[in-house]
Amino acid sequence: MAKNKANKNEIDDTIGITSPKSDLPEWYSEVILKSGMAEYAPISGCMVIRPYGYEIWERIREHFDSLIKKSGHRNMYFPLFIPDRFLKKETEHFSGFKPEVAYIDKKETDEKGKTEKYALRPTSETIIYHSYAKWIRSWRDLPLLFNQWCNIVRWETKATKLFLRTREFLWQEGHTVHESDEEASKEVMLIVGYYKKVMENLLAIPVLVGKKTENEKFAGALYTTTLESLMPDGKALQMGTSHNLGQNFAIAFGIKFRDRDETEKYAWQTSWGISTRLIGALVMTHGDDKGLVLPPRIAPIQAVIVPIIFEKNKKEVLREAMRIKRVIDKFRVEVDDRDDYSAGWKFNEWELKGVPLRIEIGPRDIRNKEVVLVRRDNGKKIHVKMRNLKSITEKTLNEIQNNLFRKAKSFLESNTKVASNFNEFKKLLADKKMIKANWCGESSCEDEIKDKTTATIRLIPFEKENLKGKCVHCGKKAKYVVYFAKAY
Amino acid sequence: MAKNKANKNEIDDTIGITSPKSDLPEWYSEVILKSGMAEYAPISGCMVIRPYGYEIWERIREHFDSLIKKSGHRNMYFPLFIPDRFLKKETEHFSGFKPEVAYIDKKETDEKGKTEKYALRPTSETIIYHSYAKWIRSWRDLPLLFNQWCNIVRWETKATKLFLRTREFLWQEGHTVHESDEEASKEVMLIVGYYKKVMENLLAIPVLVGKKTENEKFAGALYTTTLESLMPDGKALQMGTSHNLGQNFAIAFGIKFRDRDETEKYAWQTSWGISTRLIGALVMTHGDDKGLVLPPRIAPIQAVIVPIIFEKNKKEVLREAMRIKRVIDKFRVEVDDRDDYSAGWKFNEWELKGVPLRIEIGPRDIRNKEVVLVRRDNGKKIHVKMRNLKSITEKTLNEIQNNLFRKAKSFLESNTKVASNFNEFKKLLADKKMIKANWCGESSCEDEIKDKTTATIRLIPFEKENLKGKCVHCGKKAKYVVYFAKAY
Repeated sequence: MAKNKANKNEIDDTIGITSPKSDLPEWYSEVILKSGMAEYAPISGCMVIRPYGYEIWERIREHFDSLIKKSGHRNMYFPLFIPDRFLKKETEHFSGFKPEVAYIDKKETDEKGKTEKYALRPTSETIIYHSYAKWIRSWRDLPLLFNQWCNIVRWETKATKLFLRTREFLWQEGHTVHESDEEASKEVMLIVGYYKKVMENLLAIPVLVGKKTENEKFAGALYTTTLESLMPDGKALQMGTSHNLGQNFAIAFGIKFRDRDETEKYAWQTSWGISTRLIGALVMTHGDDKGLVLPPRIAPIQAVIVPIIFEKNKKEVLREAMRIKRVIDKFRVEVDDRDDYSAGWKFNEWELKGVPLRIEIGPRDIRNKEVVLVRRDNGKKIHVKMRNLKSITEKTLNEIQNNLFRKAKSFLESNTKVASNFNEFKKLLADKKMIKANWCGESSCEDEIKDKTTATIRLIPFEKENLKGKCVHCGKKAKYVVYFAKAY
Repeated sequence: MAKNKANKNEIDDTIGITSPKSDLPEWYSEVILKSGMAEYAPISGCMVIRPYGYEIWERIREHFDSLIKKSGHRNMYFPLFIPDRFLKKETEHFSGFKPEVAYIDKKETDEKGKTEKYALRPTSETIIYHSYAKWIRSWRDLPLLFNQWCNIVRWETKATKLFLRTREFLWQEGHTVHESDEEASKEVMLIVGYYKKVMENLLAIPVLVGKKTENEKFAGALYTTTLESLMPDGKALQMGTSHNLGQNFAIAFGIKFRDRDETEKYAWQTSWGISTRLIGALVMTHGDDKGLVLPPRIAPIQAVIVPIIFEKNKKEVLREAMRIKRVIDKFRVEVDDRDDYSAGWKFNEWELKGVPLRIEIGPRDIRNKEVVLVRRDNGKKIHVKMRNLKSITEKTLNEIQNNLFRKAKSFLESNTKVASNFNEFKKLLADKKMIKANWCGESSCEDEIKDKTTATIRLIPFEKENLKGKCVHCGKKAKYVVYFAKAY
């Protein structure tokens, strides 16, 4: 059912998730479809993001947007369409995207009478920098700190996968311009810090942070920084990237500024992005055999109140459920008052949907002036006196958030292993580990490792370690300690 | 310079606006380009929304989004692409959009081995309702209240105009499903009420509200409601529409639900939208010969503090300007501390950008413990004691908001005239008036009026008036009092 077939949205009617998480691809599709987050669209390789999934994206957006706005960034909107000649201006950039570029059937005649083809943006560097060249005149116009939230089209030829690889996806792309390499580098790291906050504090997904190798960097960048997480199948997922573009695009598009010394200089640029792919990472990182598990800070519903109803005291219990909702209305709470489903059925459904906290209230609880809280992350039940409900709810939601991060962090740590030779390397890879190893720094050696194992260097960590020893593959003197993994 | 030419963004370097507002098309482009709201993109008929314009859209979006969320609507995201066969399912709908539909160059083979063309959404009814047909099973699934914020592509053949008609624009499209015609109608009117709030309370643009005629309704709707404003050139601008789709799409796409009585019924639907076009209306409604005039509630910057600097007390004045900013930091305030521009130059620039309130502070003001406020809407200067600054700022911003609405309302009222015969009608139209007149209710009569004058019926107001008299054109017994105008 993970396949992108005609019947791709058709899942069995069994209540609850039928595939165990160990069958990751089947489990992943089933969880996303049954929880109502998203489904395959009737366009090959595209998806429909349903409200339950979209609310997660809205929260990511609000969180990141407020961080960049506070540091002086502003939003804008450039067209979906990019003239083909723009894409081709920065050769390295274009060759990186070429196979995935889709065009529209409308052609126009440009100023010089040439027929102009329009691409759908696979990323917007070129069209944005065409404008920046006109907007920027002087050092006084810098730094220029702009961003846009938009849809992106990359006509993937590889198999697509809900949230992780679709032919259209949503993202933000930041595009900033600076006076110097140093300032651009600072911006790159500022954004890496914001991304880490979104991933670790909001989504509870721990990430490794560092630079990409020359082979793996963004097409057209001076260098690329990346945030990588480890999925349950041992594959790394690139969660976000922040590039120092150097002066490559500035030279191609003529982005110059008159500096304080009255000379004209090419500007330094950065670009950076995160996308709806983060939602895929969220599902895989925290979910379990019962379905989704959502960290409270990102969950559309943080607590669901399920009244335990018997015919004779139905009214009383429902009234009490509504009263409780008001007590904890600073959280995102729903009362499940549907009377055509049993309490057990509801428990399963809300577990599948990953709601962090379930609050059960029945006639006996009312008599005892208490409720039962059930944690989604570990299944623990807590009897709570009504008068403590608000504070215990807050405390428990925080605990769930922290526990999910801790669990994911411990998974990442215990599945990251050092390989000291290539045999160990291959064994660890077969064992689904992220591998830490010495590397000589040669692109050709990296290529050979990829050819032999399909694993790539995910990042060169920012904190350099003192190196003793040799490259895990070629045996030459090591230059870096790096992380290897197969990747999504 | 309003033309969509190669040099369309090239405006003279004169500081300030050179075209008077009475030359509306030239003035309009010049104001938008020079204020930095937007510019023509290097793709024919498309625009770049710059941060100063985009912030206005963000504020419209936040305002409307919070209204619909409070009433239980949720956001989602459907693909940009629509299979051609979907578009063609509702014949009337398709014929309404056909000339403007763009397709991508990627074709796919569908389930039946047929080649499938993908259109870029000109509106999303068809692809959304294809999914709704699967999502909706029972009356318990209703009402379904979903919305999406997205980009839209309509490959216009008419001349394009920044914000008002571009080949790509941003909008929201709400798509709801109901059990009955009555409920759908209620939803249509709920949204009309929200739209009116956005237009009148936020943008300070008064609107006329009513139904469209059969000729003018949305392709595929049972009926269309509309909100229309009157522009300075006497043309009406459609600001937003809310449609009762009846069961037309439900039948075409098979959206059925099992009702309480266990029978299967076709659902009733609505759709509704507002777009970045509203920003065009905002510019035209309030602007003047000096440039933009922004109502405080929508303005990206509500007040700008301009320090009057002389070399010897520069530090003191700048420090005081910063202090004042903190006093009124509940508003969106900027200090213009650039020292390479004169105060007079700054005044012009902020007037051009439509900032509602300018706060001047110089050495003498500091000695007198006061500042000077200058209103953008009427140019009035107010000397304000420092201790009253916060309360007077608040009061003045409110007054500006109300004054702009009052002025626009009085313009609408004084430029709406009753025509009792067709000669009067033509005279009033030549005189750039919105015309109120009796109409027989016949589409053919409406067509003839359009052929003769290019004016159309903008709306049939919700409040019916007692009718005495005959159709303004054909002289038959009148059925409605309606509003006529030429339209954008």
